[in-house]
This record gives sequence, C-alpha cells and structure tokens, in this order.
Amino acid sequence: MAEFNTAAHLQEVLDSFSHCEDARFKEIMTSVVRHLHACVAELKLSPEEWISSVKFLTATGAICTDKRQEFILLSDLLGVSTLTVGINQHRGDDCLEETVEGPFYWKGAPELPLGADISTGVSGEKAYYYGKVLDANGCAVANALLDVWSGDGDGNYDMQLPEQTEMLARGKFRTDAQGRYSFWSIKPSYYPIPQDGPAGLMQGKLERHPNRPGHVHFKISADGFYPVNTQLFVANGPYLESDCVFGVKPSLIVNYIEHAAGITPDGKHLNSTYYSVPFDFRLTAA
Amino acid sequence: MAEFNTAAHLQEVLDSFSHCEDARFKEIMTSVVRHLHACVAELKLSPEEWISSVKFLTATGAICTDKRQEFILLSDLLGVSTLTVGINQHRGDDCLEETVEGPFYWKGAPELPLGADISTGVSGEKAYYYGKVLDANGCAVANALLDVWSGDGDGNYDMQLPEQTEMLARGKFRTDAQGRYSFWSIKPSYYPIPQDGPAGLMQGKLERHPNRPGHVHFKISADGFYPVNTQLFVANGPYLESDCVFGVKPSLIVNYIEHAAGITPDGKHLNSTYYSVPFDFRLTAA
Repeated sequence: MAEFNTAAHLQEVLDSFSHCEDARFKEIMTSVVRHLHACVAELKLSPEEWISSVKFLTATGAICTDKRQEFILLSDLLGVSTLTVGINQHRGDDCLEETVEGPFYWKGAPELPLGADISTGVSGEKAYYYGKVLDANGCAVANALLDVWSGDGDGNYDMQLPEQTEMLARGKFRTDAQGRYSFWSIKPSYYPIPQDGPAGLMQGKLERHPNRPGHVHFKISADGFYPVNTQLFVANGPYLESDCVFGVKPSLIVNYIEHAAGITPDGKHLNSTYYSVPFDFRLTAA
Repeated sequence: MAEFNTAAHLQEVLDSFSHCEDARFKEIMTSVVRHLHACVAELKLSPEEWISSVKFLTATGAICTDKRQEFILLSDLLGVSTLTVGINQHRGDDCLEETVEGPFYWKGAPELPLGADISTGVSGEKAYYYGKVLDANGCAVANALLDVWSGDGDGNYDMQLPEQTEMLARGKFRTDAQGRYSFWSIKPSYYPIPQDGPAGLMQGKLERHPNRPGHVHFKISADGFYPVNTQLFVANGPYLESDCVFGVKPSLIVNYIEHAAGITPDGKHLNSTYYSVPFDFRLTAA
C-alpha cells in the first residue's frame, strides 16, 4: 500500500505561510498547524470523526450570543483558560496566585466605603471579608483597589437571575493607609456550568461533573504592582478537588469561620450565624 | 518568580477524563488537550491573543449556514481536510490517489449513457473525457460508477449561480464491459474560495492567494474495490503549484489536448475548438 506522506504535506502547508509578514501571526499559525496535523495523524482521525468535529465546532458557534460564550466555556472545561492565565502571570515567590476571570465579570461596580455590605437582596449566609493588601515583604499597600464579585448562596450570579437588571454582590473597595480592606457579602455556593450546549454535552460524555466550587472573585490593582485577577475558594466545600474549569489553587482556599449570632468584628449586631473570612493578598511588584 | 507548572496542570486535566468509558472519545480528547496545551504553552499565548482566538472561532461559527460551512473551509485552508483524506485512503502502489471532496457535491446526479454531454447551459470550452477504469493489474473493471461534477469555465459551480436551481455539469456514468467510460463536459477554470469570512481573512493575513486550480471531481465505486473520491486537474493551468486547499497530486494532473473544430473522437461535428482528456482510473482492490 502507498502511504500518504504526512511530513511532506505538513511542510507544504507551512511553506504556504512564507510570504506572511506578520511574524507573530506566522508563528501562531505555524504552531497551530503543526499541532492540528500531529493530532489528526496520531489519532488517524476517520472521515466520520472529522465531520463530527466540524459539526461540534459549528454547534458551539451556533449557541453563542452576546450573553453566552460557548467557546470560552470550552476553553475553560479543557483547562486552556487556566493555562493561559498561568503562563502569563507575574508572580513573585509566595505572592498571590491568579486564576480565571470567568464569564460573570460586570464592569462598573460601585466604589464603596470599607465595611460596606454588598449582600443586600442576595440569598445566602452573611460573611465578613477582611484582611490586608501587602507587598512581597509584608508591607502594607495603601490605596489598592479590590473589585469584588460573586454568585449567591444558591449558586447564581445576578446576570443569571431572570428579570434581575441591577448588580448584586458586587463592589469596589480601596485599602486604607494600613493596607486594610473589609466588606460584607455572602458565602457563595458551588454551581454548575451551562449544560445545554455542546460544551456541556462534551463534559457529560467525559463523565465529568459540571460544577465549580464556591468562590469569590477579586480583581486587585495598585500602583507599582502587577494587577491580579483571582478567586478565593470556600474551604471544605464540594468540588474543591475537581473544579470543572481547573481554577482552584491550594493557596486560594480560605476558611470561612462560623460565628454565632451576636456582635460582629466591626461592631454590628446580627441575628443569624455568620462567617468571617480573613485573607491577606500579597502583590508582586511590577 | 514562581513559574506556573504546565505539566502538572495538563495532568490534572487529563486525569479528569479517567471515568470516561468511551475509549475512542477519551483517546481523541486526550490528544486534543495535549496538543492544545502544548500549542498555547510553546506560543506563550497572551490573554489578548487568547480572546482573539475565541473571537475568531465565534465569527467562524456566526457565518455558517445550511449552505456555507466555514469550519470546513478553515480545515481545507489549513491542510487538515487533505490530511484526513490522505491518512484514510486505501491505495495500492500506482493506484489512483484520493483528494478532498470539497463543498460542492450534490447527491442525486442523473445516470447517463456513455458519451452523454453534461455541458448543456454551462459556460466554457467543450472537453471530451474518456478512458478506462482498471484494477491494479491493468484489467478492465466493468460496471464501475463514476459520479462526476465540476464548476464551469468561469469558475462557478451550479450551486453558486444566482437563481440556478437545476444541476449543471453533473452526471453519473457506468463503465462498459471493457471498463470504458466517456462523456462531454467543459474545461473547468480555477476559482477563489469565499473571501468574505474569517477563513478568507486568515488566508489574506497569511499573504496567500485564495484560488484553487481548475479541476473535475470524480467519485468512483465498483464492487470489490475501495470507493475513491478524487479530482483531475487541468495541466498547465494557474495555481497548480499552490492550490489553496493543498488538494493537487502530480498523478492527478491531466493534459487537456486541444483540437481544431471538426469531427470528434466519438464522431460528432463541432464548430469550435475543443479538448480531449484521456485518463485511466486504477482502483485498489478492497
């Protein structure tokens, strides 16, 4: 039998890029084509599998809207988003790790005074978040901006709630002269990614659960430091060991300390049990 | 600086497939994820490049319709379609090579007597196609079915002509007891792939021309032989050395022999110059 010469074919495709003057684009396309060809050849992909792949990508495109990005979800579920974040982070030893931003960031949350409560109208148990923003040496970083968002105690973000047009569980906070921040929100729940599209179908066919463990998002910026996009994860919650988007880092798992009803650390009185969540963010100098 | 551990991250993603019971699907997803991660890591893809990739795939999906398959076009332009055909073909030494089917196959062309003319209403210079279907030893294959289609002399397929609802330049022919086939059609022109979508934009950014050389498609089947999907290319035409979908094989380039007006090989009288195109198809036994 005459064998198809895969190496010569690959070279023919790569040679066709020889007039491309955008060096980075050429580099990207060369790597993409090398890996595409290697993947197809090593799998000995059948014509039926090839057309199935085409149909999968087409269905992924067909379900995308202004509010739904199935290709990002696919990237998340295959660990590509976390990989991209990881290889681009500037992180000094023992400094804060980054993780994926996810699809629920909503630009323009209000800047609020330290200690403000962003849990109004949000289902879930109250939690008091507090700590410091520090540099690598443990010195306070004043005037750092923390942009905070999370889902609620049932696992839903404001954007996902029908008829919810206002922001919920979102706010910006600036550290004081001692680098301190504090605010009230809720203890967020785990939640499933959308399962009614091709990415969810893939997840099911891989026999993987569709859940992310409960977490709060933080975008942190301060003059002289690399900006950081990260999440804090609720310790001892479900799916910490199997986050479906591979976003959990051990350094980002925090204890939610349970307190009986009564006087809170900031002198309020609560009628229900609540949590306190102490965490210091250590930034990397730019 | 603390480095992100790409190998550990890849392993975490692959480990998440451990419960998948569909062995082939698991094999495919493992290869896809290995190559995706290797590609992103070796490129050190930036967050901006990552979101550009997401937008490119989203735009590719958005332009797909029942009549337009931009992901197949992308696969064609990156040589993946030709690779898939190549690694799946069963081809005895010196037997017929396969190449891509392309997007213009229209099932259900009429079966016509040998010598019939499928060029009625088709722009272009007339050409008489004839030869034999043979086995690897050169023995005639009787009753082989040839399903033929091509664009016209201006580079358009019937499907692409506005308001054209009937088939043009398509037909099926069966070899006779001596393995012979013959029919009249036209000499097809080179033509550009659609350039108004993401695949065309990519092609432009790579500084590649968008053209395919002139060719006629043949799907050939016969009892006891592997079915073949192939094309014959017009020798000495433009773009033979740089087919934008990498479909040309030297063994598939055929001479279109020019003849003055007059009596044709099958005894007709033509008032214009015409071509004759002799070609024998050598099939591989199944």
